Amino acid sequence: MPAHSSRKATHQQTRLHNSRLVLKTIYDHGRISRAEIARITGLTRPTVSDMVAELMEEGLVEEVGQGPSEGGKPPILLSVVDDARHLIGIDLASDAFRGAVINLRGETRHRVHLPLHGQDGEAALQLVYRLIDELASATDRPLLGIGIGTPGLMDPVNGVVRQAVNLDWQDLPLRRLLEERYALPIYVANDCQVAALAEYTFGKGKDVDNLVLIKIEHGIGAGIVLNGQLFYGSTFGAGEIGHVAVVEEGERCRCGNFGCLETVASARAILQRARRAAQTTTIADVCRAFQNGDERVRQPVLEAAKYLGVAAANLVGALSVRRILIAGSVTCFGEGWLEAIRQEMLRRSLGAVACQTEVGFSAIDPDDIVILGASALVLTYELGLFAPLAGGIGATIAETTSGGVTP
Amino acid sequence: MPAHSSRKATHQQTRLHNSRLVLKTIYDHGRISRAEIARITGLTRPTVSDMVAELMEEGLVEEVGQGPSEGGKPPILLSVVDDARHLIGIDLASDAFRGAVINLRGETRHRVHLPLHGQDGEAALQLVYRLIDELASATDRPLLGIGIGTPGLMDPVNGVVRQAVNLDWQDLPLRRLLEERYALPIYVANDCQVAALAEYTFGKGKDVDNLVLIKIEHGIGAGIVLNGQLFYGSTFGAGEIGHVAVVEEGERCRCGNFGCLETVASARAILQRARRAAQTTTIADVCRAFQNGDERVRQPVLEAAKYLGVAAANLVGALSVRRILIAGSVTCFGEGWLEAIRQEMLRRSLGAVACQTEVGFSAIDPDDIVILGASALVLTYELGLFAPLAGGIGATIAETTSGGVTP
Repeated sequence: MPAHSSRKATHQQTRLHNSRLVLKTIYDHGRISRAEIARITGLTRPTVSDMVAELMEEGLVEEVGQGPSEGGKPPILLSVVDDARHLIGIDLASDAFRGAVINLRGETRHRVHLPLHGQDGEAALQLVYRLIDELASATDRPLLGIGIGTPGLMDPVNGVVRQAVNLDWQDLPLRRLLEERYALPIYVANDCQVAALAEYTFGKGKDVDNLVLIKIEHGIGAGIVLNGQLFYGSTFGAGEIGHVAVVEEGERCRCGNFGCLETVASARAILQRARRAAQTTTIADVCRAFQNGDERVRQPVLEAAKYLGVAAANLVGALSVRRILIAGSVTCFGEGWLEAIRQEMLRRSLGAVACQTEVGFSAIDPDDIVILGASALVLTYELGLFAPLAGGIGATIAETTSGGVTP
Repeated sequence: MPAHSSRKATHQQTRLHNSRLVLKTIYDHGRISRAEIARITGLTRPTVSDMVAELMEEGLVEEVGQGPSEGGKPPILLSVVDDARHLIGIDLASDAFRGAVINLRGETRHRVHLPLHGQDGEAALQLVYRLIDELASATDRPLLGIGIGTPGLMDPVNGVVRQAVNLDWQDLPLRRLLEERYALPIYVANDCQVAALAEYTFGKGKDVDNLVLIKIEHGIGAGIVLNGQLFYGSTFGAGEIGHVAVVEEGERCRCGNFGCLETVASARAILQRARRAAQTTTIADVCRAFQNGDERVRQPVLEAAKYLGVAAANLVGALSVRRILIAGSVTCFGEGWLEAIRQEMLRRSLGAVACQTEVGFSAIDPDDIVILGASALVLTYELGLFAPLAGGIGATIAETTSGGVTP
């Protein structure tokens, strides 16, 4: 019980906590006996049996055979039913709205991809509805909820898109609209922020408490996981590093300022600069030319690395983070490019701290990362399967939705 | 109970939690009745009476008269005995080792100031002992513990000073040494980090959850409070912004890199640059000249503001923080200087986020801020009086000291 809770725990909260504790223990162990759960959690055997019975009744847990005897009767092993519930994860990307039906293990059961042809405002919202309708009709399992990663400034506490320039959404109460339409728990957060949660939950973040993921596509944004929780910042713009200036007297950015990181290191900026020099029409073309040692694309590609190194140094100085991961189509530039980022970071921040910071590539498919991160939000807040839930905005999010969470 | 605790709460933990909850409620309210405590905390009347009796026996709480009747017998009011315990707060500053005896309200009861004449290594450690000895003998109250803010890279989990260049300390197990000598709970953290905690606890941070304090003296460092907790970072260097490069092809810094923020915006750098231009020997001289419109000092002083604006923009981009405070002797440059920092920050980060970030001066005396921050660590972890304790490194610190804390 945290000392910062200003109220005692009620019986109901304790029961929900214990139930989630048992579910998470089974989930994490794959196959486990009731006795082992009791040993690990410190709960009594009767309490464990009680919670397991309830979880089996809900269809979330099943008996899956017997484990080795430890002297007496061989224990019955329990396992989570991975497809007992499904959920919908959505990525409102700049080129298409993508979504998937996801099970309790984060496995994709069905995908829908709706290309975006310049729709914005109400038309973009209608496309979100169509995407969710198609996905919802593709599963017969009970839906836990819907998780959405959206570009732009997002207020995750109130579920409101404050500003998504490309979609022409301003103060759009996306959560309320979707709750009314689907009567399901809805979680909405910035796409880069949930991408970091995906990496923390399903990718290269499992062994660290703090993690920054820099997502580079059309734009650049970072997601920050601190102490195992997504950090949104007081004004919800945590990780908006794409619009921090890194070039003195630099190009004008679409945000109105000059010399932003996006103007030199986004996939769009790299592509634009490479096009001026060589015959390249996609980032994959630029990658091939770069890997083949084409001097004409070398400069814009390495300049992007340099400025990403500046951004990494700023993140190290602020957060002393152990792992910075880069996600997006630019990962095709490979290890040499990563090393250029690393070297610039080391040159620009305190050696004793920066030398402990790994810079690497995300291991998750860029097309899946936002969908998985949005799914992780649902699995975390609806069932408590992943990140710690106590404290911070996380708890607030959950309290303001129908999902509920132990405080 | 947080869903991330992997164990159920034991009876003893619940009791400690409830006792701290009652103490904090009395502390926060000044004067309060048992009935009101029960109403606020949700604890039963008998539990409250039980906890109050215990706290009174320990001398931490006393009855201080009667409140207005609400129909029946007028209730007896309770109050915390502010001087029931004292603690020692220490600032290992670059010019002197300063310390104070502090009471439960953060009020100073006694001060000791030991100037530093180049002592380092073992001699500096002996000076720490002398400081604590003098302070300990100046109070007859039971000591809660000792809190220390130290320059350099500090591992607060193990209480080890990893690297304090000026003091020539490397991997010094300061906590263990002091625990053995004084048999008291010892809390050691980086001086800039605890300064931020001072501001959060006693200063301008009370109304926000996230706060960055930039401490500018000989060097520059920031302390970061996130979700009400001091954030150290995975590698404990969170806030080491003084050694992030902000000038291309800049001066060599004592850290070995070039163009670090310290080389242009520390009090030392400003003073050095101003000296070249005008007859100034202290920051106070530079301030007077700047306020009097002396053009010769204007440039170095405003250049410092510009680069602090760069640093502020980097912090906004990473953390989306609502309040950035500047502490140290440079606060004498006044509002105009602050405005220059603010403008540069706005020019270099996303407007929709940065416009919500206040930049201000610390309200705490620079000579007291580290002492108070170190004291806040002790009051927080020993009695649970301030910041939330659950989760993160905070909990880990407490578990590894004699103090103990509800997990």
